[in-house]
Amino acid sequence: MDKFLQAAIDEAKKGIDEGGIPIGSVLVIDDKIVGRGHNRRVQNGSAVLHAEMDCLENAGRIKASDYKRATLYSTLSPCDMCSGAVLLYGIPNVVIGENKTFKGPEEYVKSRGVNVKVMDNQECINLMGTFIKNNPELWNEDIGV
Amino acid sequence: MDKFLQAAIDEAKKGIDEGGIPIGSVLVIDDKIVGRGHNRRVQNGSAVLHAEMDCLENAGRIKASDYKRATLYSTLSPCDMCSGAVLLYGIPNVVIGENKTFKGPEEYVKSRGVNVKVMDNQECINLMGTFIKNNPELWNEDIGV
Repeated sequence: MDKFLQAAIDEAKKGIDEGGIPIGSVLVIDDKIVGRGHNRRVQNGSAVLHAEMDCLENAGRIKASDYKRATLYSTLSPCDMCSGAVLLYGIPNVVIGENKTFKGPEEYVKSRGVNVKVMDNQECINLMGTFIKNNPELWNEDIGV
Repeated sequence: MDKFLQAAIDEAKKGIDEGGIPIGSVLVIDDKIVGRGHNRRVQNGSAVLHAEMDCLENAGRIKASDYKRATLYSTLSPCDMCSGAVLLYGIPNVVIGENKTFKGPEEYVKSRGVNVKVMDNQECINLMGTFIKNNPELWNEDIGV
């Protein structure tokens, strides 16, 4: 098991424990986690703090040259907003736990030069599958549906 | 002068008064402003609160059906991240103060069905032109360069 994807899953589980949406993310530079986050829609009443955004926010202000060596891990395929953040900062690598329960604009992100790796992790699939089944309205709100 | 673009410019000026980056945004639904925001990189040490994101965050959790009637105003052409937020929530209209000092992925946003209107507002151009000239490093950090 990839230790960084595991750290993202741990973040997703923190989200569940807080009554939130179970998506987690970590930002890795030079083999070190420099930011961790999870979806804060429920906890903060937030419209913008998806897991990846919360992770980038918690990582703080980072130099462009450091983003250019980074990998963003997320338990779920990043949506348009989070994919856009990857493109804004020129993050070259994205590792995705799963894209079976939701798939963001992966092809577009790849077309902009980002290396996208999908892990098809069963734990990630189970986390989201169960959550979506039990909370369809909350999930739809999170993805603007 | 469009009253909503003026409200976005007022937000940008609040940013200057706080020592921040002068970009402002408002979200309008049914001819009413439901959220206002400005760039918070300096003020909050934020990597994700561009003006449009701050505006969406301040607007709070909104139903998908309400976003579908919204217009997002920004004093500056939205970057990849902020454009992605527009796409995530299916906001159908974006009004941009200017795109001379920075231009985000307007063509891509249009290709996804969003109506994009650029106002070529001289006050917006002057605000950003002066800021970028005096703070090139801070500006580059904000756009990941």
